[in-house]
Amino acid sequence: MEKISRTKIVDLLKREDFGAMVNVKGWVRTRRGSKQVNFIALNDGSTINNVQIVVDLENFDEALLKDITTGACLSVNGVLTESVGAGQKAEIQAREIEVLGTCDNTYPLQKKGHSMEFLREIAHLRPRTNTFGAVFRIRHNMAIAIHTFFHQKGFFYFHTPIITASDCEGAGQMFQVTTKNLYDLKKDENGSIIYDDDFFGKQASLTVSGQLEGELAATALGAIYTFGPTFRAENSNTPRHLAEFWMVEPEVAFADLSELMDLEEEFIKFCVKWALDNCADDLEFLNKMVDKGLIERLQKVVNTEFVRLPYTEGIKILEEAVAKGHKFEFPVYWGCDLASEHERYLVEEHFQKPVIMIDYPKEIKAFYMKQNEDGKTVQGTDVLFPQIGEIIGGSVREENYDKLMARITELHIPMKDMWWYLDTRKYGTCPHAGFGLGFERLLLFVTGMANIRDVIPFPRTPRNAEF
Amino acid sequence: MEKISRTKIVDLLKREDFGAMVNVKGWVRTRRGSKQVNFIALNDGSTINNVQIVVDLENFDEALLKDITTGACLSVNGVLTESVGAGQKAEIQAREIEVLGTCDNTYPLQKKGHSMEFLREIAHLRPRTNTFGAVFRIRHNMAIAIHTFFHQKGFFYFHTPIITASDCEGAGQMFQVTTKNLYDLKKDENGSIIYDDDFFGKQASLTVSGQLEGELAATALGAIYTFGPTFRAENSNTPRHLAEFWMVEPEVAFADLSELMDLEEEFIKFCVKWALDNCADDLEFLNKMVDKGLIERLQKVVNTEFVRLPYTEGIKILEEAVAKGHKFEFPVYWGCDLASEHERYLVEEHFQKPVIMIDYPKEIKAFYMKQNEDGKTVQGTDVLFPQIGEIIGGSVREENYDKLMARITELHIPMKDMWWYLDTRKYGTCPHAGFGLGFERLLLFVTGMANIRDVIPFPRTPRNAEF
Repeated sequence: MEKISRTKIVDLLKREDFGAMVNVKGWVRTRRGSKQVNFIALNDGSTINNVQIVVDLENFDEALLKDITTGACLSVNGVLTESVGAGQKAEIQAREIEVLGTCDNTYPLQKKGHSMEFLREIAHLRPRTNTFGAVFRIRHNMAIAIHTFFHQKGFFYFHTPIITASDCEGAGQMFQVTTKNLYDLKKDENGSIIYDDDFFGKQASLTVSGQLEGELAATALGAIYTFGPTFRAENSNTPRHLAEFWMVEPEVAFADLSELMDLEEEFIKFCVKWALDNCADDLEFLNKMVDKGLIERLQKVVNTEFVRLPYTEGIKILEEAVAKGHKFEFPVYWGCDLASEHERYLVEEHFQKPVIMIDYPKEIKAFYMKQNEDGKTVQGTDVLFPQIGEIIGGSVREENYDKLMARITELHIPMKDMWWYLDTRKYGTCPHAGFGLGFERLLLFVTGMANIRDVIPFPRTPRNAEF
Repeated sequence: MEKISRTKIVDLLKREDFGAMVNVKGWVRTRRGSKQVNFIALNDGSTINNVQIVVDLENFDEALLKDITTGACLSVNGVLTESVGAGQKAEIQAREIEVLGTCDNTYPLQKKGHSMEFLREIAHLRPRTNTFGAVFRIRHNMAIAIHTFFHQKGFFYFHTPIITASDCEGAGQMFQVTTKNLYDLKKDENGSIIYDDDFFGKQASLTVSGQLEGELAATALGAIYTFGPTFRAENSNTPRHLAEFWMVEPEVAFADLSELMDLEEEFIKFCVKWALDNCADDLEFLNKMVDKGLIERLQKVVNTEFVRLPYTEGIKILEEAVAKGHKFEFPVYWGCDLASEHERYLVEEHFQKPVIMIDYPKEIKAFYMKQNEDGKTVQGTDVLFPQIGEIIGGSVREENYDKLMARITELHIPMKDMWWYLDTRKYGTCPHAGFGLGFERLLLFVTGMANIRDVIPFPRTPRNAEF
């Protein structure tokens, strides 16, 4: 076969130099046609669009043609031709075809219309489908959007540790990390397992958040963000939970509540606009096949000013709804932790806009949030989205050493491993704020997919660490 | 204090609108001066450069001045003024100063000239030093360079799993991940620990490489890269080893050996050039304080064509060196795994250029590398760098199912958990290639730092998981 340099299909479909000899390589999606002419839809993953290969059957061996089945890998030399039919404007008149890899009829993706559940069982092959190709190209683009946003704003990407010997929020179920021989666990006289001979010389776990280390960095480099894997050993089998997920956590020195809210809103609009600008083909496919309201919802977020709503006012609105006869499953009262139904009422029914809720009762928020003058509330922020609910959780951090310690004591938080965190408040403390975004939550919103296991390549959930 | 919107120091030092009222916020690096005038060097982490704050003492309270100590956090309003002395061209004549956070004399970074060992013990504060500020800004820039390079080339960023139930290369010491209660380990009749009640229903570990999952993605999306944390539970206390490090692993469908080498060389030159173009101030500092030959070495890599050297030729060169009287500690013979001294001889003495060594004996390389026709060698590539040694390891992958299986059988590799990997060779297999770059190895080269623990924020090593 003549050696012609390969053109990716995403680039080929933009070319207009009809008559040129080109080479494409990719996998057969479908093959159809008559006894004279066959049409192969070839895809190479660079785009959701296939290129049509027109095959004049009399020019090719029957043995070769037999191997051109769904899933087979081909290299095709041919003439770039203006397409007469609907679909793409360019196609290829095949001159030479090489089958690089055959694909027999045990291939699980031969037939169409597989369930999401089945595709999860073959997660090693599902990126070859239209839906998951689209999802993972969008996932890539959202990661690039995140790095672009923060880099342009002068934030530094900061790698906080994955293995940790301290439990960030004094809560959260963690995975233990060990090199100990579990068949020979030594114990001390009190019956406690001795960790001195474990790899790190003490008990270690997988991180649940990089925030505290991120604060160390922000109080040195000014503005940083993390973007890395995070872990929760919760036995939650829901469409919203993963044991391993990716989190983005910016942290900004000298930011106050208003600047934090500006950053949250600007950030998420930037990401969604990036998807609309850079993933049009994939979004159109998902809009057609997965979620008819998707693109409209994305456009609305980009063009809408988010509501900024103190918790106390939110409770009033919910209480008024109850008074007018709206039924909630869970009771509404000042001090309650809002349930999903409450958040959705505010976002989807009352305001019909994303809402940034602020100034929460301190009892329902983490110890490190900045305490307001009222003695009752803290400067936490939750960004609430239609369908998704909470997509971002953030706060101004309590930078005053005495106030922070008082709260830590009040909550009996074990701080013995936290001396380094407290040092930031001791040595040149500064006002600062930050937030956390669950990357897969963002992807649920941007792709319209219903289950979080379908927006990460290889989901880790209870009883599942396949591939 | 009057509210003026903050200017980051990196931006302020570029301004020329002298006479303007400005606000800066940051931390005091030094304070010196006379009884009339004091000079504060203020840094906010946005750049290695400090801005000089000129303080006319008679305009400020003594109580306030007393708090302006090394490490204190200040907000300063003042007039942007052209500087007369050496150093930066702009400085600030202070009008108002607020001490946001005091810093007493227990602050460990008050005096200069701390050892790297001591700074590792206060890794939570070391990003506030010039050296580590520079290193972590360069680290950020190298991450951005990596994403930019691959995004521009149409590669998709792909998140391979961190927790895995299969051991990638059938080798490598791994960390176990578990939620089992170690005080109550149930065993079966053979005395084996029962993992059915562990979180994933089986034994699980931290990944040592994303390559195999990366191959799944490349054979669907065409070209992908991973960039994430990777783990080795090796008890290696050396300046080159970390238990937790970040790895970049691109994987490209349809690439052959020559295209792989092109990609490796182009990639690393892109990253080094990015550092020279975007981190000039930080590199100048490191060049002056840490490694006098740094910038020259970086420029040389960018401007030099890498040598491409078959292993067999490399052995000949080494044998000739021995014949001429060069002494190596380890013997040189065809089939040997090159020691660091051999690699350095080739790179630093013989060629005085980076070397891409290829076509290694199959016995010293991994099972998945593409077998050459000679039956003896495989299409592996190591990129060897001055001082660093191997900075990239890559290969063309064996795409032929039968050849791959023969090698797996020969090496007795347990493939029971690898059915999904073999499916790529079964269903539309395609030629493909990829490589792995240890991110911290790249950073050692680009920063000139001597110890790998000093190019990652919070190093994890044997007996150390602090912060």
